[in-house]
Amino acid sequence: MNISEKILSQKIGYEVSPGEIIELDVDLAMSHDGTSPPAIKTFEKISDKVWDNEKIVIVFDHNIPANTIGSAEFQKVARNFIKAQGIKNHYTHGEGICHQVLPEKGHVEPGKIIVGADSHTCTYGAFGAFSTGMGATDLAMVYATGKTWFMVPEAFKIEVEGQLKPGITSKDLILNIIGEIGIAGASYKSTEFCGETIDNLSVESRMTMTNMAIEMGAKNGIMEPNKETIEYVCSRTGKSKSQLNIVKSDKDAIYEKEYLFNVDDMEAQIACPNDVDNVKPLSQVAGTHIDQGFIGSCTNGRLSDLAQAASILEGREVHDDVRLIIIPASKEIYQQSMDLGYIKTFLDAGAIVSNPGCGPCLGGHLGVLSKGETSISSTNRNFKGRMGDPNSSVYLSNAGVVAASAISGFIENPDNL
Amino acid sequence: MNISEKILSQKIGYEVSPGEIIELDVDLAMSHDGTSPPAIKTFEKISDKVWDNEKIVIVFDHNIPANTIGSAEFQKVARNFIKAQGIKNHYTHGEGICHQVLPEKGHVEPGKIIVGADSHTCTYGAFGAFSTGMGATDLAMVYATGKTWFMVPEAFKIEVEGQLKPGITSKDLILNIIGEIGIAGASYKSTEFCGETIDNLSVESRMTMTNMAIEMGAKNGIMEPNKETIEYVCSRTGKSKSQLNIVKSDKDAIYEKEYLFNVDDMEAQIACPNDVDNVKPLSQVAGTHIDQGFIGSCTNGRLSDLAQAASILEGREVHDDVRLIIIPASKEIYQQSMDLGYIKTFLDAGAIVSNPGCGPCLGGHLGVLSKGETSISSTNRNFKGRMGDPNSSVYLSNAGVVAASAISGFIENPDNL
Repeated sequence: MNISEKILSQKIGYEVSPGEIIELDVDLAMSHDGTSPPAIKTFEKISDKVWDNEKIVIVFDHNIPANTIGSAEFQKVARNFIKAQGIKNHYTHGEGICHQVLPEKGHVEPGKIIVGADSHTCTYGAFGAFSTGMGATDLAMVYATGKTWFMVPEAFKIEVEGQLKPGITSKDLILNIIGEIGIAGASYKSTEFCGETIDNLSVESRMTMTNMAIEMGAKNGIMEPNKETIEYVCSRTGKSKSQLNIVKSDKDAIYEKEYLFNVDDMEAQIACPNDVDNVKPLSQVAGTHIDQGFIGSCTNGRLSDLAQAASILEGREVHDDVRLIIIPASKEIYQQSMDLGYIKTFLDAGAIVSNPGCGPCLGGHLGVLSKGETSISSTNRNFKGRMGDPNSSVYLSNAGVVAASAISGFIENPDNL
Repeated sequence: MNISEKILSQKIGYEVSPGEIIELDVDLAMSHDGTSPPAIKTFEKISDKVWDNEKIVIVFDHNIPANTIGSAEFQKVARNFIKAQGIKNHYTHGEGICHQVLPEKGHVEPGKIIVGADSHTCTYGAFGAFSTGMGATDLAMVYATGKTWFMVPEAFKIEVEGQLKPGITSKDLILNIIGEIGIAGASYKSTEFCGETIDNLSVESRMTMTNMAIEMGAKNGIMEPNKETIEYVCSRTGKSKSQLNIVKSDKDAIYEKEYLFNVDDMEAQIACPNDVDNVKPLSQVAGTHIDQGFIGSCTNGRLSDLAQAASILEGREVHDDVRLIIIPASKEIYQQSMDLGYIKTFLDAGAIVSNPGCGPCLGGHLGVLSKGETSISSTNRNFKGRMGDPNSSVYLSNAGVVAASAISGFIENPDNL
């Protein structure tokens, strides 16, 4: 069996097979300020008490601080629920983006089943958890019962070998993979990333990859936890390695498809408007005019991304025609970035640094695009209108390319600065 | 003559009298991201070239980064205007709130006539300038011609004596004055602040007072520049004292009314919903439940305000039911606050620190209130619905009282912590 099948089998108590529909207990359920209120509304029709007030995590990240009366009302609904149900784990004071906060605060472990009312819940697969997003209505059932159903997914094995060149990141790799597989190419599949390149990735880089599994339609993205990941989880949960449920795929595990990618010669990758699989090498789109750069999000707003950006922005200036917005993915990262001088570098370069949260990623806050404008962004989606006006455009890249482009005023290879 | 009459007389070349209508050249015209587009729209009907591209300053502060497609469109209009007209002085990359950025960047001097499409343009009176807000349409005429008209205002002399108690600030003083004079009590008057207490105020504290002159309806608020103010202007403009036009009132200057305030025993003052002149001593409203605290704005988002807040928040935690939002008034202040450890203190206490700008002050960004919610705020206005839902409430205070209240969950005297 592969990792995902093993985790599901462990939980239900027998060996599951792809295509089978199973109902099982989840270990953790997450919602944010955008999805908690609709989940709560449905929940209140079916129950008056959550199944376990220690297994629900609520994070405010989408519109924080509230940007409209509507979002303020939503947050009030969620706050009242937290209080009424005695929800133990809530992060409503700008702690950061849910997908960063949950691992940071020790809620994520290998072998767990985690669901969340946010499509990028697949991020936690970087830690060897089976995690997937669901609609707010489905999550309401989890709130009430602690159970949900899955069809056991077929799996894709995505093996990666080779050494990333300097300045090339796991974002480039996942974009490359999505470009190959397509935005619906892995629909409802378990995408399992493996191979020497994956084994050598940092925790942060791993998260970037599983985060974007949904962008090829996957049910989940997952990896065997490597040494650094296990150490991270131990440090965050206070558990020892032996207390963790580290699940690995069998050598003879069956996959519907197997892919092999080699990254030795891979250059930076750009997802061009208006689909995440419209991926081209940087050299083909360099020179494209941009109006805005954004470095942040649950995909690439972590310390290593900010470090990469800072190394490029140090001693340089953002182009006067470009606004560069930088938003650390969590308060912890914001604090670390201050300590390391990155925030000073960003300010000196002319960037705007805003409070941890989703920022402009989804087009409703802190960097909305007007008609005809173009952004390059370290985020995960570039659908039509994603970041503002339906006639605005978003290019996706790693954080270094965003920084370099913000300096040049057009999509730029950092090596050319 | 009083200061205001002298400045206007100097400019027009003869001795003006109250009630007289004069047309004169302005020295500086300011607009922001909210008011530039309507000013530009009118300007383009009457001219195709601004009168002087070095005397216009455009600052983006109200909705930065853009929070809606509409605000993004507004900013695009202003950017295009800046480029087309070759406007030299533009601060569109999150430099801060216009009324803080203009003095910081050396655009404000004693004796100058400054107009701005923002009602708190009266702030620059702290530097001995005659400065006043106007509508965007009026500003369009200034853009085109460099001229505007005024009725020479009658003046109120507001003398202040005594020593502010520890923790009591110029915000308390100006609230006390507004409570006495009323929100329309100084309509179209020049309010001139003087006396030993005013002479001893810091530049920042002086700005808080002239900033709020409009809250009693005044045409302008003005003070004779003290030593610290002159030093500040010299350091920011690169000019020597002898190059400045420091204007003082004559001993026999005529005022329509004269007030004398003594601050020796003044406690902290709170402007209660829904008018700025609904002012009560802190002791009368202490204990009132709050949902949000905001420290920032052109009134009290400066370094001394953040220092006051940090001294209270240090080692303490924001109440779990309260969100505390802190927004430095400028990038410079943000940087200084980082260097001094205030930002770390704020984050450790559980506050949200966002990018320099107006923030939630006017209810459209970064901290909007929902129905029934209450904020205590270091800002300047508490009109019905100012910070969000029409059925939300705002109490105005100094930054220290906001910080203390955020810790307690109700309006709190910092001395009680």
